Amino acid sequence: MRKLYAIGIGAGDPEHLTVQAVDRLNRVDVFFVLDKGEEKADLVRLRKEILDRFVTRPGYRVVLVEDPPRDRTPQDYRAAVADWHAARAEAYEQAIVSSLSADEVGAFLVWGDPSLYDSTIALIEAVLARGKVSFEYEVVPGISSISALVARHRTTMNQIGRAVQLTTGRRLAEGWPEGVDDVFVLLDAHTTFDRFTSQGLTIFWGAYVGTPDEILMSGPLTPALAAEIRRVRTEARERHGWIMDTYLLRRPA
Amino acid sequence: MRKLYAIGIGAGDPEHLTVQAVDRLNRVDVFFVLDKGEEKADLVRLRKEILDRFVTRPGYRVVLVEDPPRDRTPQDYRAAVADWHAARAEAYEQAIVSSLSADEVGAFLVWGDPSLYDSTIALIEAVLARGKVSFEYEVVPGISSISALVARHRTTMNQIGRAVQLTTGRRLAEGWPEGVDDVFVLLDAHTTFDRFTSQGLTIFWGAYVGTPDEILMSGPLTPALAAEIRRVRTEARERHGWIMDTYLLRRPA
Repeated sequence: MRKLYAIGIGAGDPEHLTVQAVDRLNRVDVFFVLDKGEEKADLVRLRKEILDRFVTRPGYRVVLVEDPPRDRTPQDYRAAVADWHAARAEAYEQAIVSSLSADEVGAFLVWGDPSLYDSTIALIEAVLARGKVSFEYEVVPGISSISALVARHRTTMNQIGRAVQLTTGRRLAEGWPEGVDDVFVLLDAHTTFDRFTSQGLTIFWGAYVGTPDEILMSGPLTPALAAEIRRVRTEARERHGWIMDTYLLRRPA
Repeated sequence: MRKLYAIGIGAGDPEHLTVQAVDRLNRVDVFFVLDKGEEKADLVRLRKEILDRFVTRPGYRVVLVEDPPRDRTPQDYRAAVADWHAARAEAYEQAIVSSLSADEVGAFLVWGDPSLYDSTIALIEAVLARGKVSFEYEVVPGISSISALVARHRTTMNQIGRAVQLTTGRRLAEGWPEGVDDVFVLLDAHTTFDRFTSQGLTIFWGAYVGTPDEILMSGPLTPALAAEIRRVRTEARERHGWIMDTYLLRRPA
């Protein structure tokens, strides 16, 4: 029977690969790579570096799966998202059927941890639910972007006995979450931390964490620090052509 | 200058060690092991297995640091906790001074990820703040218990675009957190999920995750499933003499 792996490859540092991930990489016949048409050369190079460094088994193939176009200005938002998800599942299904023979092993490489703000597991389940191709699959956990962030800042996710929230920039814009003192913000293109200056918070911010281009900034979230992070972020994004950043906002308990 | 590592060694599966962790293990002269007087033989064996399997550099030492006794029925709870933290920092400081010479490398091995509900980083900072011994230190992130849990259940931490909370059994007992659909519960000795049956939630529970003794249970959180998890948990804890479990409660968005 076909087998698929969803392999977390860490947030940017190739050394974040686990022993399990390296073992699974070396069982793979076909690596499926989602081609979003926008993926940055830095990330392509980093993934190639990981394969070159850790895969000793010869003869694997790399298959690009073209991400279906998405209607960004739909009449009916929910229907458009559902259509897009169905089209993606169909693209994955097609790639598996056409590129993976019945006794072969395929893999999706996922930045960070496949469990955190990533669609790979949902897509694999959607392909299975369609019922046209069957396979076993396994999830290999990886070092997440937030775990890498706090390790580099040498701080913890939680304060003693307190709760932690993982959320998106969009949700944080609605206000500070109830009942938590530490908030990790992912997928925030709008530097939403700006709205929380002068409230006694501390920020731990990082971009390209774990890579040679890593930038770390932290301190009491004053308007001056927020402006400085914005400036550094804009400058870095222009220089690289892309940015991957995340941050923790801490309210001292 | 002395150097210390806080190394995340994953939640139970030796293959969760990262390439970085294996590299750092092989630079270590002294492994400091906190002796809580209650540590279970299974965990001691698992840690020894990790060192035996991954450390190829000969001649390292293992130094037990005795955890100071804690007053469990204090008159003044806050003062007692502060005293205990100070005594722990002093014990660590003493171990570093007496066992690690000025050019050596020491390490603390941390189950899971040092950033998540673990006191090692705070203790290292407390030793530095005391000012009697100086050293560099680095945090090596690890696969956390919650990342391992969801990988084995082949599910995600978050639902699309939604928030996630990490909390303790004690906090969950105060009620379902505001504004989140997925709640990870750690440090819960009292099966607090019992209070949330018949509310349309799904539970993903796991014990000894990643080890040969792993137990996984999941499904709609009915009173029957809650009772079954309680029964399995009690039986396993009695059989092993200890238990390490965690769970995710999901409210379908």
